[in-house]
Amino acid sequence: MSRHYTLTISCPDRAGIIAAVTGFIAQHGGFIVEASYHTEQEEQRFFMRQEIRADSLPFDADEFGRRFAPLADEFSMNWQLADSAQNKRLVILVSRQDHCLDDLLHRWRTDELRVDIPCVISNHEDLRSFVEWHGIPFIYVDMAAGKAAAFEKIAALFDEYQGDTMVLARFMQILPPSLCQRYAGRIINIHHSFLPSFVGAKPYHQAYQRGVKLIGATCHYVTDELDAGPIIEQDTVRIDHGDTVDDLVRYGRDIEKTVLSRGLRYHVEDRVLVCGNKTIVFK
Amino acid sequence: MSRHYTLTISCPDRAGIIAAVTGFIAQHGGFIVEASYHTEQEEQRFFMRQEIRADSLPFDADEFGRRFAPLADEFSMNWQLADSAQNKRLVILVSRQDHCLDDLLHRWRTDELRVDIPCVISNHEDLRSFVEWHGIPFIYVDMAAGKAAAFEKIAALFDEYQGDTMVLARFMQILPPSLCQRYAGRIINIHHSFLPSFVGAKPYHQAYQRGVKLIGATCHYVTDELDAGPIIEQDTVRIDHGDTVDDLVRYGRDIEKTVLSRGLRYHVEDRVLVCGNKTIVFK
Amino acid sequence: MSRHYTLTISCPDRAGIIAAVTGFIAQHGGFIVEASYHTEQEEQRFFMRQEIRADSLPFDADEFGRRFAPLADEFSMNWQLADSAQNKRLVILVSRQDHCLDDLLHRWRTDELRVDIPCVISNHEDLRSFVEWHGIPFIYVDMAAGKAAAFEKIAALFDEYQGDTMVLARFMQILPPSLCQRYAGRIINIHHSFLPSFVGAKPYHQAYQRGVKLIGATCHYVTDELDAGPIIEQDTVRIDHGDTVDDLVRYGRDIEKTVLSRGLRYHVEDRVLVCGNKTIVFK
Amino acid sequence: MSRHYTLTISCPDRAGIIAAVTGFIAQHGGFIVEASYHTEQEEQRFFMRQEIRADSLPFDADEFGRRFAPLADEFSMNWQLADSAQNKRLVILVSRQDHCLDDLLHRWRTDELRVDIPCVISNHEDLRSFVEWHGIPFIYVDMAAGKAAAFEKIAALFDEYQGDTMVLARFMQILPPSLCQRYAGRIINIHHSFLPSFVGAKPYHQAYQRGVKLIGATCHYVTDELDAGPIIEQDTVRIDHGDTVDDLVRYGRDIEKTVLSRGLRYHVEDRVLVCGNKTIVFK
Repeated sequence: MSRHYTLTISCPDRAGIIAAVTGFIAQHGGFIVEASYHTEQEEQRFFMRQEIRADSLPFDADEFGRRFAPLADEFSMNWQLADSAQNKRLVILVSRQDHCLDDLLHRWRTDELRVDIPCVISNHEDLRSFVEWHGIPFIYVDMAAGKAAAFEKIAALFDEYQGDTMVLARFMQILPPSLCQRYAGRIINIHHSFLPSFVGAKPYHQAYQRGVKLIGATCHYVTDELDAGPIIEQDTVRIDHGDTVDDLVRYGRDIEKTVLSRGLRYHVEDRVLVCGNKTIVFK
Repeated sequence: MSRHYTLTISCPDRAGIIAAVTGFIAQHGGFIVEASYHTEQEEQRFFMRQEIRADSLPFDADEFGRRFAPLADEFSMNWQLADSAQNKRLVILVSRQDHCLDDLLHRWRTDELRVDIPCVISNHEDLRSFVEWHGIPFIYVDMAAGKAAAFEKIAALFDEYQGDTMVLARFMQILPPSLCQRYAGRIINIHHSFLPSFVGAKPYHQAYQRGVKLIGATCHYVTDELDAGPIIEQDTVRIDHGDTVDDLVRYGRDIEKTVLSRGLRYHVEDRVLVCGNKTIVFK
Repeated sequence: MSRHYTLTISCPDRAGIIAAVTGFIAQHGGFIVEASYHTEQEEQRFFMRQEIRADSLPFDADEFGRRFAPLADEFSMNWQLADSAQNKRLVILVSRQDHCLDDLLHRWRTDELRVDIPCVISNHEDLRSFVEWHGIPFIYVDMAAGKAAAFEKIAALFDEYQGDTMVLARFMQILPPSLCQRYAGRIINIHHSFLPSFVGAKPYHQAYQRGVKLIGATCHYVTDELDAGPIIEQDTVRIDHGDTVDDLVRYGRDIEKTVLSRGLRYHVEDRVLVCGNKTIVFK
Repeated sequence: MSRHYTLTISCPDRAGIIAAVTGFIAQHGGFIVEASYHTEQEEQRFFMRQEIRADSLPFDADEFGRRFAPLADEFSMNWQLADSAQNKRLVILVSRQDHCLDDLLHRWRTDELRVDIPCVISNHEDLRSFVEWHGIPFIYVDMAAGKAAAFEKIAALFDEYQGDTMVLARFMQILPPSLCQRYAGRIINIHHSFLPSFVGAKPYHQAYQRGVKLIGATCHYVTDELDAGPIIEQDTVRIDHGDTVDDLVRYGRDIEKTVLSRGLRYHVEDRVLVCGNKTIVFK
């Protein structure tokens, strides 16, 4: 796909927004490749996302921003302009289970997931060799020596490696509220249940005990309330009485991978806009 | 399908159960049409279900029972023998929404659901004409005049019409614990959420507020704890940010119908065995 | 939902289309409720659909058309403007199986499907009573007396009852090419397989013989090539080796209902635009 | 899971088979962990699969066979006894695309897929480093130098490495009939369409051209008729008009992985019995 800019906007709803924005783009010859709109009724708030072919515009992203600013002010817009030539930088946190990591690294090395992965951070050494085979730095952080210090180190690494997004790929550790707030909207977790069912630890055991007939997984932004942040993507899979907890864990791995990679893709392509505790996902 | 007996058994697990039961059947020339087995590991309890062609046995169901009893005792079995020639009798309770009722009556009048429906009970008059068009008695019960009395009347009607199973097809009323206990394992409800998420009132509103990406429905046995009984069947459907609560309600209707009719079919064909608060469903 | 106009457009792709159309709407104070865009790359053709609140415009649909025409010409647009106050008129054709009919009539009588149903036409008398209970005329057409004459009568009835769309709700008769061409884009069929697999007669038998692990249904526009018209909607359901052809037929009914009602809804809400033998469906 | 023997049987249907087999097992104290039965009605053929705890039997698998043989003869059984302590040996064939390979190797190295992988064979060098990182021999076979010779070499390697099952993990080459016949029931392919739709080359392009609303994948045994062998597992995923062929390929990869790994698991656990061109899959 050729280089494009992705313009995402949210603002109070009123007549004429689309016309104003697309008019501005057209006035400069901009060619819109993909366009999506949504009004959040309860909030009377409007959301839009547009992909514009970079080579159709007579200026670069910075200049686009300068010229667009007055219009954005007029409509009280929150807005962002992303350049497809600029990969987002994902810092991945893992523990011992590697199914999500394996899945993400495969998508990365086959160019399906267009991101940079400056480093992988873990509280265990198990996955070092696999990560390093990819030519990606693997950094061990000792949680045993004190969680507060460990999380400070993680934050420092994230900053040092200039991460845009922190991905908890089955990290199995609860982040401190300060970290959640500092990187609000930039930390993505995969929870191994169909939220809001089975919050917290051992969701597959909880599901087994309750006797549900489907299990699921949830990809969401991390907030300081556990497993309660805005949901980006979910899915479920059928189980039956013959399945043990181990079977649930096994089915669950497949769903976790799929849901995380889909949610992450939406995030990376600037398809996710947050409204309160909900997401608009322009697929 | 030709007439058959369905033998369902649960007993403590040990070696030799299948051999003993199928040996007994074979000894009388019984032809097994369908056979399913399951061990509930935590409880060390064994469950089985077998369909035997009625014409392959030299005696009727009663005599089968008399001869089978000593074996059942030896293995401490709970067991039941159902005769496919004997339709189960469903008493359906509805309120104003008729999508589940419409679905069930269609399956009934086209012989897909092999049951008798001796009457439909409602706390509103709205659906009288539709039910009576089917030649089924429609009985109005006034909830406004006092819930306790109304529920006693419902129980009396259920007994009078010799109901085997009470189906809450979006009845929208919470049954008193006494009724739940009196007909334990015989009352089936369709709840309009993917339990255990969104228990109680207005689950679609709850789902909308939480921003989930799938909604669901749950068919379960009613116990005296609200929406917490053994789950028979569930399913989910994808929604997105563009869907209003009304859209959720609309999608939900389709799922509720499907899940209720599937769960009810399993129940009617004696495919559901209860173990604690879970079900074994031999599909 | 308040009254709205739905504007659907297709035209050669170029820069500035959205700006021009939304600019025109904004210029008259029009409030866009929902907007969708798509470019069909191979054809370099652009498709759009917009819902505009009727009360936000200072004129009616006719005047909208008059004023919009010059712009439409400039961009070589095919376009249509539908008024939500004007129900589409569905003429339903059925044979003996009534699961799709039952489903559609239920959605119609509960106002989920916002259409008029001026009549139901059948080549059997079986469903007369059910249809007439709804207060809808039921018209018997004798196929045995000659198909050509029968289809001419059907066309005449469709015109007489001022049908917009003809729905083949498991009609089980192949329409003559002349009829398909005469009402191109206005006849909707539900085929009981996941097309292009199992074209023609007895698709569930074909599926059973092939040993597939999922079966499906397809809602499509009828063209003069059998089961080969533009697909509007499809879905599948899992089966297994234990399912007989009768089971497939039973599962299939549920899928057929769902797929037909979804596809029909998209059509009725002017969400379906045809491009060659494919559809764009703006959900 | 503790060691167990898996007994799979097919024979002409009649009364008393289950009793005879489970009676034999019980007579030796055998503890049945899992039991499944099925009659293929058209063929009047009976299929069964049983897992028996190895430590509950007083003899080993060979002795089991010797003692079971007379009973098997009496019922004209085809039967097999597999020992869970004996891993099946998978020889994997790949080309350049590695999503299925990556998926299988991950399941293998995390012990989810209990098999031995004596070698990976490819007609390209691309995946050597990845395979060898796992400590698995990677063998390049030159197809360019002549297909007949290349396939003879592949057969020789399969025999040399004592393969039980040959897995075509997107191998992209059509096997010669002689090879298909020689290893009948032992070669498993993943085809990137929902068969029988879109047989042969470029199925995603075919799907795109036809405008289907779901795409799928099929895991099947290879026979000498292209993409026409017994189907083990299938699944589908929803697409829409906005998806390009590249998007279909991307979605397809996820489905291919899942379907192949599920089908392979069934095969490896001796859950798949073939009857004509269909499979019975005892999940």
